[in-house]
Amino acid sequence: MKATLIHGARDIRLEEVDDPRPRAETDAVVRVVAACVCGSDLWPYRGITPTSEPHRIGHEFVGIVEEVGSAVANVHVGDFVIAPFYYCDNTCINCRNGVTTSCLNGGWWGSDDRNGEFVDGAQGERVRVPLADGTLVAAPDVPDAALIPHLLTLADVMGTGHHAAVSAGVTNGSTVAVVGDGAVGLCAILAAHRLGASRIVAMSRHADRQAIAREFGATDIVEERGDDGVARVKELFDGIGADCVLECVGTKESMDQAIRSARPGGMVGYVGVPAGGPELPIRTLFNNNVGVRGGVAPVRGYVEELLPEVLSGAIRPGRVFDLELPLAEVADAYSAMDERRATKVLLRP
Amino acid sequence: MKATLIHGARDIRLEEVDDPRPRAETDAVVRVVAACVCGSDLWPYRGITPTSEPHRIGHEFVGIVEEVGSAVANVHVGDFVIAPFYYCDNTCINCRNGVTTSCLNGGWWGSDDRNGEFVDGAQGERVRVPLADGTLVAAPDVPDAALIPHLLTLADVMGTGHHAAVSAGVTNGSTVAVVGDGAVGLCAILAAHRLGASRIVAMSRHADRQAIAREFGATDIVEERGDDGVARVKELFDGIGADCVLECVGTKESMDQAIRSARPGGMVGYVGVPAGGPELPIRTLFNNNVGVRGGVAPVRGYVEELLPEVLSGAIRPGRVFDLELPLAEVADAYSAMDERRATKVLLRP
Repeated sequence: MKATLIHGARDIRLEEVDDPRPRAETDAVVRVVAACVCGSDLWPYRGITPTSEPHRIGHEFVGIVEEVGSAVANVHVGDFVIAPFYYCDNTCINCRNGVTTSCLNGGWWGSDDRNGEFVDGAQGERVRVPLADGTLVAAPDVPDAALIPHLLTLADVMGTGHHAAVSAGVTNGSTVAVVGDGAVGLCAILAAHRLGASRIVAMSRHADRQAIAREFGATDIVEERGDDGVARVKELFDGIGADCVLECVGTKESMDQAIRSARPGGMVGYVGVPAGGPELPIRTLFNNNVGVRGGVAPVRGYVEELLPEVLSGAIRPGRVFDLELPLAEVADAYSAMDERRATKVLLRP
Repeated sequence: MKATLIHGARDIRLEEVDDPRPRAETDAVVRVVAACVCGSDLWPYRGITPTSEPHRIGHEFVGIVEEVGSAVANVHVGDFVIAPFYYCDNTCINCRNGVTTSCLNGGWWGSDDRNGEFVDGAQGERVRVPLADGTLVAAPDVPDAALIPHLLTLADVMGTGHHAAVSAGVTNGSTVAVVGDGAVGLCAILAAHRLGASRIVAMSRHADRQAIAREFGATDIVEERGDDGVARVKELFDGIGADCVLECVGTKESMDQAIRSARPGGMVGYVGVPAGGPELPIRTLFNNNVGVRGGVAPVRGYVEELLPEVLSGAIRPGRVFDLELPLAEVADAYSAMDERRATKVLLRP
């Protein structure tokens, strides 16, 4: 089959690789219907995290189950399934605590599992899924093609934006500021909106993203950054800042923006993968009683909550995809996102 | 009147100073019945934070109202009152949000108020209290002498321990580890217990403090620190760590201990005044979804909740005082705490 490998900075190739087969009785093999490129895939693409040798890449996909191991009970051949950006048993103590990203038996797409067997990346034609019963969620039916982009966001960006909102404690009547207008930031706006936020400030400088932000529930746009951005957010929220700030970038600057935009006693929910290792300024947090919570989003546990709203059309998070390409053009998908010609690119094998 | 000044490292003096008088119609003057020395007072005492010129010190007191300004309505001459370790109007937006430590009109004992008028420190015979209606809470009656130590803890350590527990989200059935066995750490154990924690590990090496910890509700004691301490806490909690960790010290080592003792998805509630500026390790927090929340404790807002239990004897947080001295021996009070001959010293003017 064909699958995507990264060979180094700005070197993405679609190559012929071995077809996956079940290796354990808890495995499934899924034919990928749609995959996509993540903002975090751009770190190795840009050479910010080095690529020492060529490896498979991609961690978001939806597809059709083609094979299942003998112990798989929850999904069946022919099911349309959503896979989170990691695999997990959904039964260990961390999974039961809702932190499926810390599954004691789980792991990541595109590397070896705990038995030393290779697990495919998502930007390919097929994926071997370990722990299929815990990892995959089947839709009730094979969905209409128009729903595919929306369903695909449940693999990562919608669940991740939701995690930012949940981690910050967004609830009915919360005031919210969102730092970052990429796919996750936009989904965080949508998540805050559906959780009942009374006012949502999107920090964005791009007209196209501002439009989606408003469609997703943003009530205000702030284009300023740094001190000016903080001052503008405070001005919008009684001079003190927002109850909840959702950090969806991962740089030192964005985290600083987030912490300083929160009101005393406020909460920063963060999901931006920390790039360049910002350390949090404890004295600022301490003096203002601003808390920080978040991390790698346990999106598996959010699928059941969000799926019915996607299927009914109540939420349309797939609006974050603004370019669709065949898998054969995966290298173009990366360059489009790198050059900001696209917010997020959907790939069709 | 007599009041305590710090002149420099290990130089505490009781001196004659001006008697306080109301300076604004919202002021009260309180005769101090009991005050105490705080762990945070030891930072300047030890020279860790420098003392550039002699200044008044102390921020915890209870007493009897002697005078009130014309606009004071909530407390009256003769009332027995509890003062938090700061003053606040209890009406501004931050106070309404529960963060009275960020009061837009508030401030700290022992320095000038916003009108440039001096506000006394608490380790003295009398204190001018700005914003008396917001700051002070009157007990229903003048309490028995035996209740004074317990009431005095509401000025700081009991409310601060409670803030650690609230910030970490301790609730019915939570598993808890407490880092720090000083007065605040012990009160944090008591707070976690009354909030319904199912299991509470006290990290302590001192037999006398371990005994109070058990009396306050600790179910287990861990004497190890560092990697061994983390391993022992994890072992006690299903191999993964505690739901909630209460950090009550403020050093880099104690925060590291706290963060690594929390389970994936767990929460660190911290109230130790950051000493030496530890920055939080974002990547560790991110990978494990461990959150951090806390800060300078808004104890004013906790007095009403805790006061009835103190008055009824349901909680006895004043057990943290293990030495009582007349105000004249305030210098000995500092050295006793510095040399760990006492956990916390109560002063009687």
